Amino acid sequence: MKNRHDKLVATAGEVEILRRIRQRAGSAGGALRLGIGDDCALLQVRPEEAIAVTTDLSIEGRHFRLDWHEPEWIGHRTLARGLSDLAAMGARPVAAFLSLGLPQELTAAKGRRASWMERFYDGFLALAGECKTPLAGGDLAQSPVAVADVVLAGAVPAAKALRRSGARPGDNLYVTGTLGGAAAGLQRLAALARKQARRPVRIPPGMEAVLKPHLHPQPRLAQGLWLQTRGIASAAIDVSDGLSTDLMHICEESGVCAVVEGAALPVAGGATLEQGLHGGEDYELLFTARPAVRLPRAIRGVAVSRIGHITRMRPRMPRVLLRGAKGDEALEPRGWEHFSQK
Amino acid sequence: MKNRHDKLVATAGEVEILRRIRQRAGSAGGALRLGIGDDCALLQVRPEEAIAVTTDLSIEGRHFRLDWHEPEWIGHRTLARGLSDLAAMGARPVAAFLSLGLPQELTAAKGRRASWMERFYDGFLALAGECKTPLAGGDLAQSPVAVADVVLAGAVPAAKALRRSGARPGDNLYVTGTLGGAAAGLQRLAALARKQARRPVRIPPGMEAVLKPHLHPQPRLAQGLWLQTRGIASAAIDVSDGLSTDLMHICEESGVCAVVEGAALPVAGGATLEQGLHGGEDYELLFTARPAVRLPRAIRGVAVSRIGHITRMRPRMPRVLLRGAKGDEALEPRGWEHFSQK
Repeated sequence: MKNRHDKLVATAGEVEILRRIRQRAGSAGGALRLGIGDDCALLQVRPEEAIAVTTDLSIEGRHFRLDWHEPEWIGHRTLARGLSDLAAMGARPVAAFLSLGLPQELTAAKGRRASWMERFYDGFLALAGECKTPLAGGDLAQSPVAVADVVLAGAVPAAKALRRSGARPGDNLYVTGTLGGAAAGLQRLAALARKQARRPVRIPPGMEAVLKPHLHPQPRLAQGLWLQTRGIASAAIDVSDGLSTDLMHICEESGVCAVVEGAALPVAGGATLEQGLHGGEDYELLFTARPAVRLPRAIRGVAVSRIGHITRMRPRMPRVLLRGAKGDEALEPRGWEHFSQK
Repeated sequence: MKNRHDKLVATAGEVEILRRIRQRAGSAGGALRLGIGDDCALLQVRPEEAIAVTTDLSIEGRHFRLDWHEPEWIGHRTLARGLSDLAAMGARPVAAFLSLGLPQELTAAKGRRASWMERFYDGFLALAGECKTPLAGGDLAQSPVAVADVVLAGAVPAAKALRRSGARPGDNLYVTGTLGGAAAGLQRLAALARKQARRPVRIPPGMEAVLKPHLHPQPRLAQGLWLQTRGIASAAIDVSDGLSTDLMHICEESGVCAVVEGAALPVAGGATLEQGLHGGEDYELLFTARPAVRLPRAIRGVAVSRIGHITRMRPRMPRVLLRGAKGDEALEPRGWEHFSQK
């Protein structure tokens, strides 16, 4: 959003698009003291607060496909990934930054149709508006493949930020919403892509709901804030890589083990247990709380399920145990890579 | 630097490299409360301070070339671009974040030789160490082309940050160091590349000095801080896109015009006037100060030159005038794109 905007774009029509993006970016105010237009943005929060910063890189062919996904979906998911990291710290969003590398043909309007770039910003800024997150800067460049790096800055009282490292033996393990829905949705989208000649894939009426977790994930900002302000969660992470992988991160950073009760997992409708255990990109919150804590069935309208508990580390014990009808087995981290090119 | 490190890298050797990078990243302390290893980093500055944030996207073939530049040079320049934006606001660095997308072959060690990725980090972390800037997070992914998005966070008293918008008619116009050296160095490197079969280009003894402004630009952090703490600069920007383009940004944001005296320009040895006027990536500071202000000849060891002054806007007057031996002419913004693929 700095001067480098000027480099990428050549025609008057494109300059006009960027002027409109800047207008829609949201204005400085509150913690954002200075937005687009200078060498840096300036953020200022309350004295007791820290600024939480996260970056998430999305690359064509790896995190999204131009031949499968509409640009608005990609814009939405790009921002959702970053906001979900803020939710996992219990932070409220202060500002977003977007570095975008695009092939030139994606920046040009097609006659009266908006350019790919403009439609990407439509999806990005719609979610930014819903989550009260102004776009405060970024960078633009030509690139042979589409790449988007999103940076989120949030505010959280330094001593109350939700960390991965606070889980203790005896804590209960919880997750918001349902798991595996994004993986199941992606599987359906891939099946549609195989059947349809049209690109990007057209969603038939009645299939919006099953694809929504994949195409329009909702970052759990309100739920993260709820946990943080009440001091309820002893550790937290967002489920971006899959339950098995993200739970491993909590165990490693906290120096503990965990037991997951297979029957208690809130597997999404249409998803398999396998997708619930390992499918990534659900952007739900996985967190722990002391045994004395009583949690409601839902936080700010989203269900919460107890799915297991934290245990002490023991020699030769697997880090995470999956408890099923047929007994216990080790739950290996197998969060999978979407669109893997290996 | 989050969990996504785990996805990119497969072999034990690569995990070892990343462990070493994390060790060398610099530890939390001071304004960096929490570094690599959680969903977000946490930054906390003094109550009167704001956090300055900037992002800079570098893309293979556009901002660097694998067949010309050694990986250490690319790592250095990637970080220098971001630090220079902090310098232009008068901010001290607090933390850097790096999102890196790389083809798989660049992440693998070649026998006993370090991988491209490790050598990139060598250059990045050497400059980070010099500038006391811990690496606080980022992201890693596979990508068909090398891309690096650097995010810098700095601290600056909110009311004293150097902005582009404060120049007033009558102010004098100054620049640190010399101009055009990076463009001249790039031209030499291109000439070497045409002559040599070896890739990346080998620098012959005696040519290091002339190539240094291109390969190892030094962000003017100490000079930006000096200007900010003394309240001396009325406006400032870093010369990343070329004097003609960056001065235009100051004029537009301040609502003023400017006169540049051609004879006063500190053109780098070996560079042409044209390169001094339009060549980018010098990362010097361009700033204005009220007429009553007396500036020393050098700030923290770097020369300062008065190169013109700010004037009122007048109808039909060009935004920037270049005053030469043959009279005045309009100075159009022609900061050029390196490695342009148009």
